[in-house]
Amino acid sequence: MSAAPAHTRAGSDPEPIDAGPVLARLRETAPLVQCLTNAVVVNFTANALLAAGAAPVMVDIPVEAGECARFASAVLVNLGTPKAEQRAAMLEAVTAAGEAGTPWVLDPVGVGALSVRTAFARELLAHRPAAIRGNASEILALAGAGAGGRGVDAADEVDAAGAAAAALARETGAVVAVSGAVDLLTDGERVVRAPGGSALLTRVTGGGCALGATTAALVAAAHDLGLPTLDGVVAAHLLHAEASERAAAADPGPGTFAVGFLDALAATTPGDLSTRQLVVAELEAAR
Amino acid sequence: MSAAPAHTRAGSDPEPIDAGPVLARLRETAPLVQCLTNAVVVNFTANALLAAGAAPVMVDIPVEAGECARFASAVLVNLGTPKAEQRAAMLEAVTAAGEAGTPWVLDPVGVGALSVRTAFARELLAHRPAAIRGNASEILALAGAGAGGRGVDAADEVDAAGAAAAALARETGAVVAVSGAVDLLTDGERVVRAPGGSALLTRVTGGGCALGATTAALVAAAHDLGLPTLDGVVAAHLLHAEASERAAAADPGPGTFAVGFLDALAATTPGDLSTRQLVVAELEAAR
Amino acid sequence: MSAAPAHTRAGSDPEPIDAGPVLARLRETAPLVQCLTNAVVVNFTANALLAAGAAPVMVDIPVEAGECARFASAVLVNLGTPKAEQRAAMLEAVTAAGEAGTPWVLDPVGVGALSVRTAFARELLAHRPAAIRGNASEILALAGAGAGGRGVDAADEVDAAGAAAAALARETGAVVAVSGAVDLLTDGERVVRAPGGSALLTRVTGGGCALGATTAALVAAAHDLGLPTLDGVVAAHLLHAEASERAAAADPGPGTFAVGFLDALAATTPGDLSTRQLVVAELEAAR
Repeated sequence: MSAAPAHTRAGSDPEPIDAGPVLARLRETAPLVQCLTNAVVVNFTANALLAAGAAPVMVDIPVEAGECARFASAVLVNLGTPKAEQRAAMLEAVTAAGEAGTPWVLDPVGVGALSVRTAFARELLAHRPAAIRGNASEILALAGAGAGGRGVDAADEVDAAGAAAAALARETGAVVAVSGAVDLLTDGERVVRAPGGSALLTRVTGGGCALGATTAALVAAAHDLGLPTLDGVVAAHLLHAEASERAAAADPGPGTFAVGFLDALAATTPGDLSTRQLVVAELEAAR
Repeated sequence: MSAAPAHTRAGSDPEPIDAGPVLARLRETAPLVQCLTNAVVVNFTANALLAAGAAPVMVDIPVEAGECARFASAVLVNLGTPKAEQRAAMLEAVTAAGEAGTPWVLDPVGVGALSVRTAFARELLAHRPAAIRGNASEILALAGAGAGGRGVDAADEVDAAGAAAAALARETGAVVAVSGAVDLLTDGERVVRAPGGSALLTRVTGGGCALGATTAALVAAAHDLGLPTLDGVVAAHLLHAEASERAAAADPGPGTFAVGFLDALAATTPGDLSTRQLVVAELEAAR
Repeated sequence: MSAAPAHTRAGSDPEPIDAGPVLARLRETAPLVQCLTNAVVVNFTANALLAAGAAPVMVDIPVEAGECARFASAVLVNLGTPKAEQRAAMLEAVTAAGEAGTPWVLDPVGVGALSVRTAFARELLAHRPAAIRGNASEILALAGAGAGGRGVDAADEVDAAGAAAAALARETGAVVAVSGAVDLLTDGERVVRAPGGSALLTRVTGGGCALGATTAALVAAAHDLGLPTLDGVVAAHLLHAEASERAAAADPGPGTFAVGFLDALAATTPGDLSTRQLVVAELEAAR
């Protein structure tokens, strides 16, 4: 069996996804996004959410994490530096999110390469995230198919993770996003390839982690419009592709790029997302 | 009773506060400001203190927190992400600060909306902070008068918190600062309204938290000059208003604004603060 | 006995160190640098490593810290905010690094002024770091010779710490770097003075801490080339001197400087380091 989900059904012609209205909804409602994330990127993530138009709240201690998840619009759980107290808070938050019907996103940073978070990520999966975003190594490991990478680097190509992503999506009910040169997003039935974005994102810490957070925000906005989770995940990936291309346009150094990326998240309009082209395909495997 | 502390005594004519000499003293002495603050803003807060001319030290572990508070010039306790180990360190720091006569500032982030920090903030109040800085929701909750907000957002208008702020000031002996479009600062007898500043501060995380830290630094400088705590609190609010207006002048995106705000904290002079106009009034309620 | 290691042997003429090839090796291999560092600078440190061309991974929880140190190219242990769980992870990491032959760097932030980290740093020394980087106060305290500073500030001159640095180097086998207006680097037999760099580094938090991290990366690159640890330490100090001078050239504010410093770390070439002049001398004391 090929690992590539590019084996799409001939003749199928799914509707294209227009992400503009999802971003417009985010801007109107400023959803409260609770982030339980790693110490390295927590500031950049909050600033990315604010720039995009959402309202971040970084509550990640026991007792309060569950309280917050009950009134948040979406929750992000990022496993970059999962200290014991934070892991307890994460379990509370996803339990409360499940009870409240709040969508939550799992970012399995470093899963596969490191044992504590790998076991913990599998425990979290039982709480049914709305979306999972990671690199190819992480998605392969989470699906039980990979050999693990070296930390947070992507050692596998995105395409190699496509079949694992689709299987993981069908097993968990989550939309699975594999970040790479061309991002691959799938709900287990459809697959979307999102090209574009800037390689400068790999020279700054937190680009992928911030994408997990804006994914949470835009999934909340999509649900608010009665749209499927996949539309929110697509909107987040298009927003980051657009913003990173703008910030990279003048070929800046990595410090200047990170600052310009936040500016560009704020400046990107719903219309900008509507004009970006995507290939949406149905998966044969899902039939 | 009206909630507005604008009910000032007719005919009263308190002295205006000139914040210039307080900033000048900060620049001469570079006070050591110990910050026990949240993980989201700890880097931005240290950089804001350095830019303003103070010397930050972020010691927040048990045993050392008390040691440090004995030689620090001022202490900041910010409840944004109050993990258990940090809460223990905070209690040590405020106890040592009290014994050493070191002024400390409480920033009750999220109090009212979240239970652990709300109970903890009340415990901290017994250690008599020199100043308390928060948004209207937080001040209302701390004074026992509010219904709580949704996390760190301000759900109440500043004016609605004015009476609660004055009552809290009289109860605790602290100067209470309510951040909003127009900041309201009161020692329970006088009230100062500090207008200005840029709305871009709401698009970047850490503006309010950094204000808590520069408040601690400038309260230390005011005490050093034999001036009341209110003068230091006023100086901090004028410094942030001036610096944020400068950084916002060219209408930047939020990333560029945050960088420019640090530049502007460094570039603002004592003379700049001396020229900003303030309305100081005496409170009827205090009579 | 003079505290100055400037008492070099007349007539000695050690080889100059060319740091260009070490930086070139870093750029070719992108060594994985595991950082167990403080919450204030963890984002800036990761971005500095990425800008310089290394691959940061901030794994600092028990169990995983030891796992990661076995496949990392180098490890940084920075004592800026050493919470209990992180201290346990640090011990695991340096133990694993020792077993795997991975070089690790100790940055004794605040040692001498604060008790928990001072005792802990002495415990870490038994695990034989490849290099130690600190300011004069910290190096004096670590060598048992100093009276401690006030937190992370340098209260002693670099020269005053020279003899202590050389003694510490001979006792522990580490290269010891003392940061100051002119940096002093010694392996206990040779001493290198690295002038240059910008005073703006003292107006931004994390410059010294990031230097500890790039030191780890460049020590790994030096070892990779079969060169001594001192060559890697020299390369890191020249890289930071060069990058900070470039970033300071237009006399920016501190916010702009920090952004430009990351840009300049990325833009500095091996050739730039090769052209910087250094005075290498043999120490009399080592004879």
